[in-house]
Order: sequence, then structure tokens, then C-alpha cells
Amino acid sequence: MGRSARSTFVVQPGKTHPRDYPADAPSKGPDDKSEGAADLSGLRSKLAVQQEMLYACGTAGDPRSILLVLQGMDTSGKGGVSSDVVSAFNPAGVHFASFKAPTPKELKHDFLWRIHKQVPAAGQVGVFDRSHYEDVLVAKVRKLAADSVIEERYSRINDFEAELTATGVTVVKCFLHIDFNEQRQRLLAWLDDPTKHWKFREGDIDDRQLWPDFEDAYAAALGRCSTAQSPWYVIPSNKKWYRNWAVASIMLETFEDMKLTYPEVDLDFQRLKERLAPPN
Amino acid sequence: MGRSARSTFVVQPGKTHPRDYPADAPSKGPDDKSEGAADLSGLRSKLAVQQEMLYACGTAGDPRSILLVLQGMDTSGKGGVSSDVVSAFNPAGVHFASFKAPTPKELKHDFLWRIHKQVPAAGQVGVFDRSHYEDVLVAKVRKLAADSVIEERYSRINDFEAELTATGVTVVKCFLHIDFNEQRQRLLAWLDDPTKHWKFREGDIDDRQLWPDFEDAYAAALGRCSTAQSPWYVIPSNKKWYRNWAVASIMLETFEDMKLTYPEVDLDFQRLKERLAPPN
Repeated sequence: MGRSARSTFVVQPGKTHPRDYPADAPSKGPDDKSEGAADLSGLRSKLAVQQEMLYACGTAGDPRSILLVLQGMDTSGKGGVSSDVVSAFNPAGVHFASFKAPTPKELKHDFLWRIHKQVPAAGQVGVFDRSHYEDVLVAKVRKLAADSVIEERYSRINDFEAELTATGVTVVKCFLHIDFNEQRQRLLAWLDDPTKHWKFREGDIDDRQLWPDFEDAYAAALGRCSTAQSPWYVIPSNKKWYRNWAVASIMLETFEDMKLTYPEVDLDFQRLKERLAPPN
Repeated sequence: MGRSARSTFVVQPGKTHPRDYPADAPSKGPDDKSEGAADLSGLRSKLAVQQEMLYACGTAGDPRSILLVLQGMDTSGKGGVSSDVVSAFNPAGVHFASFKAPTPKELKHDFLWRIHKQVPAAGQVGVFDRSHYEDVLVAKVRKLAADSVIEERYSRINDFEAELTATGVTVVKCFLHIDFNEQRQRLLAWLDDPTKHWKFREGDIDDRQLWPDFEDAYAAALGRCSTAQSPWYVIPSNKKWYRNWAVASIMLETFEDMKLTYPEVDLDFQRLKERLAPPN
């Protein structure tokens, strides 16, 4: 493999615009769909073991957890990563949160209020389908807040993520990067498939008019909020199998870095076995 | 197959004691572990499609959801059903809730307060690892509430589940049935496996002294709270592969009974395709 997936996909200093990164599958990693599927299968098995160790540590007082943040344009595959990668984990240890447009009640609070409530507990894998980044993405593009407010939010996000990191939450932020034409193909495919019509929102086409603005907003977010402790990864996502492999690889490396082991338990095994002896 | 899984495993009138039901794999269903695994694989694929339809309906205003309630003695496999069956679903559409001993705050509310908050939203599959039934099981065995209070709770549970059913939540209650010796084998296996030590609680052995009392409490709960609309199923769970097959089969039949289809969407497809034409 050579370089790690994390170092391959992490946002590079001074290179923060989506157009600076490939949306198509690059040369690193599996060569095609069938190799990608085989690799993913192996990664899923390893992820399941790592998650069980994380969960076990959580029951033993270890505060650590992992939070996977998924962002991307419509059709970029946030749901696909959920069904193809996150499903490797035991659902008992997964906390999934999807963030839509804020409710009136949520709007009466600071923008991180609803987010903080969904941070995974010790031992859990949290998954955010969209996140606090919407407040510097769609909010910026659609001018839902003043520039000065948006500007302030980058700092608030960095402080928030620094606090999470300090208290044991490893934040893994993946931008699922597809290009303009790939989105067109996917929307057309949805229109041609009655089992996909429910996914279609005409607003998705409206948003395409603002594609360059969204790209600029991502460039700003990736530039301001990719830190050493909680970096952004840009995932080439035109090919679903490549996207899945890349996210799973980054997750596995993140887990392995935590050097998890099953917790040691102070029990008198011999006595316990005697207690379990069958009745005479 | 002949009889449906639901009619095979549903609690029979006047037969509510766990000892009235097999814990070992009966003759219905797959014959052995490898046949069970093959059947489960097919069931998982079908469950994934059904769940996507349920989720899609939820986005289109259909209020329906499914709630899988898992109860059973320690080691009976609630976590195993989660990892082997529930993992078939896209995590984006799963709401998993685990109920431990109530917190001081929860104890200041009625026993259904913390439960109601975890009921799945429209389109979701909810999973309860333990549930409101703990309040008539451990609470009865350990005399955490007066007999008259326990007695009253059966009615409150029936009313609660009737309301859920009426508002679109299909409740599927599975009692994972293992026998006393199987639990002993599983606890011994945990003691012999360092990767399982974290699961072990000495209290599990203490609870074994109360096994007959727990069986009686289950008999009362199954007798009082297995209704036509939200019946209890007794799952033979000594064999994990059989347990997984049975729960998956019941879930699939439940889904199929809902006669889900992808929602029809009122869109002008031709116009939308024109809007998606590439720029000249």
C-alpha cells in the first residue's frame, strides 16, 4: 500500500478547493470494482473487531469514542457510506444522527447546541450525516447568516472539535467529493428508476446552479477547519466502490492508531468457575 | 416452509411459561448452522430492501415504523441479534436504544417516560435491547416495586403498545429463550476467553440463583402482554444460528405484511431531465 489512506486523502496545506482534488478514483487503492469489493470485505471484518474493542473499553471506563462526519453535495453518497461501511459495525455501538434544516426550536439556540447533544458516548461510533458544517456551507451560500457570523463560526467549530478531541472523541471528517457531471448522471439515474424517485428533490437541481458557490464554501471550511487533530479528508467519490474503500481504510487506520485492546478485568476466574458448577 | 415463522413462535394462549417452549432448535427451519447461515444471508438482503421502502415511505409522510423489542436472560443473545440481524439494515434508518437500570432522573418519572422517548420515528426501525418489560421482570423478581404496582404495569404496557400500534408503530417482541445449562456454558466460555471477559458481570451468576423466579416473571409478562396486535414471540436461542434465522424470519414477515412499496412521487420527469441537460 505504501502511504496510508489518511495521508493520501488528508487536505493539504494551501490546497483546499475541491477542484484541487480528484473526484474520480486515483491510482492508489483497489484497481476496480471487484477488487474494491474484496478489499472492503476484509476492512469490514477488521472494523467490526475494532469497534467491539472500543465498545468493550467504553464499558470499562475508557472515555474514548469516534465520530465520523460525512459531508458532500447531494447524491455524493452519505447514505451509501452508511449502508456499505457503517453497517460493518454492531448497531448497538453506533449512534447515527442526521442533520436537516434546523427546526424553529433549534434556531433559538447557538448552532452547536443540537450538534453537541448527538456526540457519541464513550465506546460508541458516532456518524453524522451532515453536521455543524452546514452552518458554514449552506448558510454561507444562501446567506442565511451575516458574513461576520459565518467567519466567527469557523473558530467556534475549531474550539468545539478541540474540546471533543481533548475529552476522547476522535473526529474523522470526510468530504465526499463528486464532480458536477457525476451528480448530473446520478440525478438522471434517479429519475429513470421508480425505486429512487423518493430520493429526488427538485431543490437538488436548484442547488446545482450554485455549485461554484458551494465549492467555494467547502474550500473555506476545509481551509479553516482542517486541523492536525481533526483533519478533513477529501474522498474521491465518483466511484462508489472507491469511496467505500477509502472511508473504510481511513476509519480502520484511525481505530488502529487508538491501540485498542480488550480491557483487562480483575476477576477470580477459578472461584467464578466453581460458582458456575452444576448443582449436585 | 408451511407455517409462517410468526405463527410458529408466537406465544400460545394458556402456554406462557418458558418451560413450555423449546430452547433448542426445533425441527422447523434450517437444519444446521451452515443452512442457517445461507438462509440468513437471503433474509438479510430482503430485509434491507424492505427497510429502504419503509424509510422511503417515511420521507413521503407515511407514519409507519417497526419496533423490535429484545428481551432475554443474560447471555441470551440480544447483542448477537443486533450484530447478526439488525446489521442488515442501513444504520441511517435504525434507532437503537439500550435500557439499563434507570437513572435517578428516570426514576422520578413514570416507568414509560424514558421508553416513549426512544420510540422510532416514521420510517425507522427501532431496536430495544431490554425495554419497559424490565419493569415487570427484574422489578418483580427483586421486589423493586409493590405487587400492586407491578400488577398495574401490565395494563399500562398494554395501553402503551396499543397506542403505538394505533399510530403506526408495529411492535415485534422477541423473548430470546435459552435454558439454564446453556447460560452456564456461555458464561464459562466467556471466562475462558480474554476477549469476552469484559462482558462478564459477577451479578450474572447471582441472577442464576433466581432463575426460576425470572422464568415465572417472564411467564406473567408473556401471559399478560401478548396481544393480538403486539404478540410475544418465544425464540429458541440455544443455537445462535437458529435464533438469528427465527428473528430475521419474523421481521421479514412483519415487513411483508405492511405491503410496503416505494412511494409514488408527483414529478414532471421530462421537464426535470431537460433542466438537467448539460450546459451548451
